[in-house]
Amino acid sequence: MIAPFTFRSCLRAHGRSIPTSYGRSLSTSRFQLPPTIRQILSSPEVGETVAVTGWVKSIRKQKRIAFGVLSDGSSAVGLQAVFLDGLGERVKEITNGTSVRVRGSIVKSPGAGQDKELHVEEVEILGTCPPDTYPIQKQALTPEYLRDNTHLRARTDAISAMVRLRGLLMRKLDRYFEHQDFAYAHTPVLTSGDAEGGGEAFRIASIPPSSERPPETEEEREFFARPAYLTVSHQLHLEALSTALTRVYTLSPCFRAERGVTRRHLAEFWMLEAEWGVAPTHDPRTQTAALCDFVEGVVKGVVSDPAIIYGQDVEVLWRHREHDSVPEAERQIRREALASAVTSDAPWPKMTYSEAIRELLKSDQKWTFPIRWGSALQSEHEKWLCETLVGGPLFVTDYPAVIKPFYMRANPLAAGEEEVTVSCFDLLMPYVGELAGGSVREERLDVLKASMESKGMNMDEERYGWYGDLRRFGGAPHVGFGLGFERLVGWVGGIENVRECVPMPRWAGRMVL
Amino acid sequence: MIAPFTFRSCLRAHGRSIPTSYGRSLSTSRFQLPPTIRQILSSPEVGETVAVTGWVKSIRKQKRIAFGVLSDGSSAVGLQAVFLDGLGERVKEITNGTSVRVRGSIVKSPGAGQDKELHVEEVEILGTCPPDTYPIQKQALTPEYLRDNTHLRARTDAISAMVRLRGLLMRKLDRYFEHQDFAYAHTPVLTSGDAEGGGEAFRIASIPPSSERPPETEEEREFFARPAYLTVSHQLHLEALSTALTRVYTLSPCFRAERGVTRRHLAEFWMLEAEWGVAPTHDPRTQTAALCDFVEGVVKGVVSDPAIIYGQDVEVLWRHREHDSVPEAERQIRREALASAVTSDAPWPKMTYSEAIRELLKSDQKWTFPIRWGSALQSEHEKWLCETLVGGPLFVTDYPAVIKPFYMRANPLAAGEEEVTVSCFDLLMPYVGELAGGSVREERLDVLKASMESKGMNMDEERYGWYGDLRRFGGAPHVGFGLGFERLVGWVGGIENVRECVPMPRWAGRMVL
Repeated sequence: MIAPFTFRSCLRAHGRSIPTSYGRSLSTSRFQLPPTIRQILSSPEVGETVAVTGWVKSIRKQKRIAFGVLSDGSSAVGLQAVFLDGLGERVKEITNGTSVRVRGSIVKSPGAGQDKELHVEEVEILGTCPPDTYPIQKQALTPEYLRDNTHLRARTDAISAMVRLRGLLMRKLDRYFEHQDFAYAHTPVLTSGDAEGGGEAFRIASIPPSSERPPETEEEREFFARPAYLTVSHQLHLEALSTALTRVYTLSPCFRAERGVTRRHLAEFWMLEAEWGVAPTHDPRTQTAALCDFVEGVVKGVVSDPAIIYGQDVEVLWRHREHDSVPEAERQIRREALASAVTSDAPWPKMTYSEAIRELLKSDQKWTFPIRWGSALQSEHEKWLCETLVGGPLFVTDYPAVIKPFYMRANPLAAGEEEVTVSCFDLLMPYVGELAGGSVREERLDVLKASMESKGMNMDEERYGWYGDLRRFGGAPHVGFGLGFERLVGWVGGIENVRECVPMPRWAGRMVL
Repeated sequence: MIAPFTFRSCLRAHGRSIPTSYGRSLSTSRFQLPPTIRQILSSPEVGETVAVTGWVKSIRKQKRIAFGVLSDGSSAVGLQAVFLDGLGERVKEITNGTSVRVRGSIVKSPGAGQDKELHVEEVEILGTCPPDTYPIQKQALTPEYLRDNTHLRARTDAISAMVRLRGLLMRKLDRYFEHQDFAYAHTPVLTSGDAEGGGEAFRIASIPPSSERPPETEEEREFFARPAYLTVSHQLHLEALSTALTRVYTLSPCFRAERGVTRRHLAEFWMLEAEWGVAPTHDPRTQTAALCDFVEGVVKGVVSDPAIIYGQDVEVLWRHREHDSVPEAERQIRREALASAVTSDAPWPKMTYSEAIRELLKSDQKWTFPIRWGSALQSEHEKWLCETLVGGPLFVTDYPAVIKPFYMRANPLAAGEEEVTVSCFDLLMPYVGELAGGSVREERLDVLKASMESKGMNMDEERYGWYGDLRRFGGAPHVGFGLGFERLVGWVGGIENVRECVPMPRWAGRMVL
């Protein structure tokens, strides 16, 4: 048993304290956790004595010495640990995955690849790890195998890098939105309707009938006295908050009961959604252009942060290629294209849907789905547009009204146009597909009502009436967008399947844990 | 129609740009939204011309002049606007709730109560607001009425202050955890089990049988091939991530299908949950004490931030008392006690459950529920302990094992003890009740297994097996806690009912929108 390593001694050793904005005069030593491996590796000092709790990523034992790598998951890089002679029997017990508490001194490392290493003076085994049955073996493990072992897969380099990257992206996104003076808001997961009318919302089960007195009315059968669904999008609720707070955003879970199983879809996924008021213009297309610029700013502003695009976690994720279908040289090209897309001053190109259709018709590709104005763009079309035609991120704007939801603002007919388009965009990313989509929202009550009717919805019904109220009482021009958080993670990390972009993925037929 | 107010001119006027860490060399003017009212009010300049989009909180019209307050929800304080003569007919159309775009100059205000005001030179009506039917009238509105008008209630001072306070608390919490080197992680909402075994989990409805071929097996009936629930707590999943990442936290929605309707319970609520590895000790009570200290540090570190405890939104919330049962003088006392609790260096007292029982038995209160060692503390007991006995936040620790969940670590029996207690705490707050709860987690596989069996759970079943794996493969001592986010909001803002602590509340029998 190692003598307790007090918070106070740790604080003294590292001179760390909680910044003054937190609690000002508070004595903080009681509150401060000891340094993590990341903090130890990023502090300049050598010669210090530190105590670390972590687990062994790998260990190589020689006769009188052993070399190990310790991880506590705080960093993509582990702490090199040298177990000197005299630690005796205890080192024998250590295998990959064993949890340990070690104490020793940080010294300059003679080896290449690391600045510092830990010379271990005391070691305590916290939890052994049976080498024969440990599911996280050293050899390459398939994504499918790791999905079956979801509870332990964050012990692999790639999954832990992905989890840290998610957290970092979330933090940087929040700071970006804070800078633009948005309020972060929590809109509900449980909703009374299927917002987009796609019929893909999960429904909450009714109350199981008791034998004594079976429920007779909907009010008795349903916990909320009406059917409840899991939200497919937070947009409509965010619009309600935007009526008062003007600039609001959320990063929240969304749910779709899609039976189709692809590498781009999950049943539970996180979306960043934002809504804000804008100045009116004669032509809403002007607003669409400004909306695209804003979204480009969000993605560039966050991803170009060196801690992300040049960070160790992104490095690990792009290097991780055991099971990848893309050859190394091609991966290198893609990664450079990503860095260039987010750091370049050049605006990402914008193209209307009609222009996109013309380009697709001009191409000599063989398409599975025919190209026709008025039909949705399929993955193969989107892929060609951004990967082949443009070679980078691409905004496609002004889609036909008939293939878009009811809440998008109708464009005035331009010269020569016969069909109504709406002021909207899809942001297409190479190898990812649609990363974000948004629109100007229809602020005119009568036009909104007609648009709903054309989609078989009746604004006079209670479940849509409140959405009409947002226009009735001081409604104003506003815009918004949604960005698939797992797709962002996949794009930034070069991860092919969204199931490896979230710690514990759920999809049709599969839910582990 | 006002001439377009370009992003570039706004940027020039205000000298704002995206900080260098965002995108470094990027030209940011395309990405920057115009200043909000909060930004205009907090910038030192007067004499500038600005354009603002917002809505009218109030307007007083005189013969040749009108005085209004504009809001865009960015701040608790609105912008005083003077509509000078010559704006003519347009001012007549303006009523409370009308959305407008105004342009004018910021001048030093001669009036008391504000530094600056806007002299409006151009006004454009974006959306009228019929005064007779507008649900948000000036007179005091009851909380019940506003809950029926959830979609518009953020236009009231108190609800918009609460939404901003939530966002601010979330941001400060994230920075606090970042400072302590925690990774923010998204654990799933959809889970395969009822984590705490309380039977209060919402269940996802099975796939509706089609007439052609009714489903025969569970795999066919369930979208995930097995029953799916909404999570009641993210703890067990966070523990899995902590096995790899050591320090993890989340702020995520949780769900409980509780039929009881109280001012402290919602069916959908947000919880902050954290798990981290700790050094082993002989006596886990030492870890409980350190865990309580950490939680005290989180709450003090975040809430004592002057932007929160002395911020305008908290001021608005404590001043808002039309429908409150607490007299003004008493509210003042409570608010001062809150500020003192978070800014004082004095540690919040800790008391074991056994000590609490002794104190309760000594008191001469009349209790509805009898005081008995081995029974849960009821609200009346918790209330007396923190409000009367201690007069502030109180940690109650080391509860009997029989009334706590299976995952809490058993204490070694102390001298004179006959019944097993567990290393845990509840944090009791005056007028709120339990704000947070946590424990040392049982890291010993055999003890955990026995503990599960004593609660009727079998670790060999697939749905619990993974939790055992976390101990089998390098399991190590760790601790964690959960904090009810709505209760934190209520405590900080002096809000009596949690339904006013979340933008769109859901509870048994009620779900608006």
